[in-house]
Amino acid sequence: MENLEPGYDIPALPGWREDQVQTPALLVDLDALEANIARMAAAAQAAGVALRPHGKMHKSADVARLQMAAGAVGLCCQKVSEAEAFVRAGLRDVLVTNQIVDPAKIDRLARLAGMAAVGVCVDNAANVADLSAACLRHGTTLRVLVEVDTGQARCGVDTPDQAVALARAIQSAPGLDFGGVQAYQGAMQHLPTHAERQAAFQASQARLVPVLAALQAAGIACPTVTGGGTGSWGFEAASGLWTELQCGSYAFMDADYGRITGAGGSRLDAEWQNALFVLAQVMSLSRGRAVCDAGLKAMTAESGLPLVRGREGVTYQGYSDEHGQLDDPAGRLRLGDRIRLVPGHCDPTCNLHDWMVATRGGVVQALWPVTARGKVF
Amino acid sequence: MENLEPGYDIPALPGWREDQVQTPALLVDLDALEANIARMAAAAQAAGVALRPHGKMHKSADVARLQMAAGAVGLCCQKVSEAEAFVRAGLRDVLVTNQIVDPAKIDRLARLAGMAAVGVCVDNAANVADLSAACLRHGTTLRVLVEVDTGQARCGVDTPDQAVALARAIQSAPGLDFGGVQAYQGAMQHLPTHAERQAAFQASQARLVPVLAALQAAGIACPTVTGGGTGSWGFEAASGLWTELQCGSYAFMDADYGRITGAGGSRLDAEWQNALFVLAQVMSLSRGRAVCDAGLKAMTAESGLPLVRGREGVTYQGYSDEHGQLDDPAGRLRLGDRIRLVPGHCDPTCNLHDWMVATRGGVVQALWPVTARGKVF
Repeated sequence: MENLEPGYDIPALPGWREDQVQTPALLVDLDALEANIARMAAAAQAAGVALRPHGKMHKSADVARLQMAAGAVGLCCQKVSEAEAFVRAGLRDVLVTNQIVDPAKIDRLARLAGMAAVGVCVDNAANVADLSAACLRHGTTLRVLVEVDTGQARCGVDTPDQAVALARAIQSAPGLDFGGVQAYQGAMQHLPTHAERQAAFQASQARLVPVLAALQAAGIACPTVTGGGTGSWGFEAASGLWTELQCGSYAFMDADYGRITGAGGSRLDAEWQNALFVLAQVMSLSRGRAVCDAGLKAMTAESGLPLVRGREGVTYQGYSDEHGQLDDPAGRLRLGDRIRLVPGHCDPTCNLHDWMVATRGGVVQALWPVTARGKVF
Repeated sequence: MENLEPGYDIPALPGWREDQVQTPALLVDLDALEANIARMAAAAQAAGVALRPHGKMHKSADVARLQMAAGAVGLCCQKVSEAEAFVRAGLRDVLVTNQIVDPAKIDRLARLAGMAAVGVCVDNAANVADLSAACLRHGTTLRVLVEVDTGQARCGVDTPDQAVALARAIQSAPGLDFGGVQAYQGAMQHLPTHAERQAAFQASQARLVPVLAALQAAGIACPTVTGGGTGSWGFEAASGLWTELQCGSYAFMDADYGRITGAGGSRLDAEWQNALFVLAQVMSLSRGRAVCDAGLKAMTAESGLPLVRGREGVTYQGYSDEHGQLDDPAGRLRLGDRIRLVPGHCDPTCNLHDWMVATRGGVVQALWPVTARGKVF
């Protein structure tokens, strides 16, 4: 790090106090992160399911290594370049929970399978043939899962017959191993109440059950059923059907997950700790308004406004590209004050930053590169 | 570029056809960009005002160099790290159109003034003293402008007396040159009709006029009045008050500027060409739905959905982090098809990508790094 310059290149150095960090910066509270990772690892173990956390959320090899050390079986990714970034950083088991159809990307994926255990999802028979041909070229093997649409109406096959046909195609394709079923329903994760998520889960399960029955009837062993997110994992873990959880947000949490409720109406995020913050600074107090330096380029807006932590009565009222409008009715904020914000949506917010500032007790412990930042292709 | 690997590191190589570019990627149509740059340069020259395009929009030294070659007097930036990135890339005149209050950032800014002509805005007297002290330490000079709140209710002083007091403080502070007045009203740029923007401009001008009169009455020469954006620049250019325009979006345009109207009710973007696209690829066609690979990590959502170009009847219906839902009533899309999307909001969308793929006639001409991407602090 000696050739990096704090400020321009990195927002802090180890040993700095939080009030020295150059803002806006992405802060990771290590105590909270470690507690979240331990809690989910224990829950998965208790339920007898594997945990394969989603790397698309944090995009950080450092966070992934903590998750692996706590017993995760591997990592999920969404993009080939994301998987490449994690494999280059030393991760050895990645599942691309997505369809990869571009010839160049398929080639990269088959090549990557020579360096790590690599899986991918399909919902199209021609895609199976293309993946197989690439693996033959590279002399590698890909683990291929059939994605089933369990209610999100996005990707995935619709009927048990289609799932069986694709599984057979994978089984008979050289260079491919049939890995099982991808059954993730993203749309239910942020439904506001436990009852709504439970109902959506039951509908999702009702779409999965006949697929698994058809595979069994066809004599096709299904090694893995993988899915689940931070809003639904308890249902999948208890179902006896899913064998692997893909939760991502649990490690950091965000303001949007803070708005949904768990069983009994309790706040879902009371079970977890906010480990991710955008550190902002008050940069203008003209006319009694407080304006901070964190706007749309420091956190994304599609899941609502960030929450202010540790400043009683202060709220974040509005975004522009580089500014945030704060409401401070008691007028306590001073020019230069630093403020912890809980971003609305952790995944795309992590993707904005080159570095995570890992802190403990208000002191910077490490600078973590956001390994797969911008790896969208 | 020989040690970069197309795919993982960069989305394309010069000479590739557009249908080989790894998606999602940020495309810049060079013919459209050059036309936009030439048109605004000519308009500013005809109006007798200087043009200082806003670098926060594109964050690209390559685009900035084209703007400078067309007669721009310098570049605007919003952040110290952004200004540092542009100066490192060879730009020699940058104005930070923002307040910089953090001691470490002030120090970096004063140091940067030893490498380029650097300006900054203030709305606070203590900030003037801090900037001056830093310039004395580094033996440099900063050009300091008084920001006036002309109606956005964000940063900037409120009254003519405050403006005069700050201008005097700057004039008497060693290491600082009084550069004039920053008068930018961002909130009016995207008002939907010409009449609404004109009314907002008149209110903005009504706040500026007494400030300029008070400065004159106090015997303070005001070398520059700078402001204006892509939605309002015609008003500022014709006012006889503003001496410099700060437009940014005109170079690329976006879907949101396409929704507002110019004089006579014509589309504002009919005067400009869309030069910025997110190239996406159809990755799933399960159940008759087309899903593409460009979601929230390829373009931001706060200004509405992207527009599909060149695919009749196809519309972009919804986002998730890595997916876009397309509506294709005629069922013409095929797996692997590439689609040009006009993003909703150019500024934060450019900030998501590491590279711009500069194309002409469907062939890649160059890969441009997004010089100041992520330079938020």
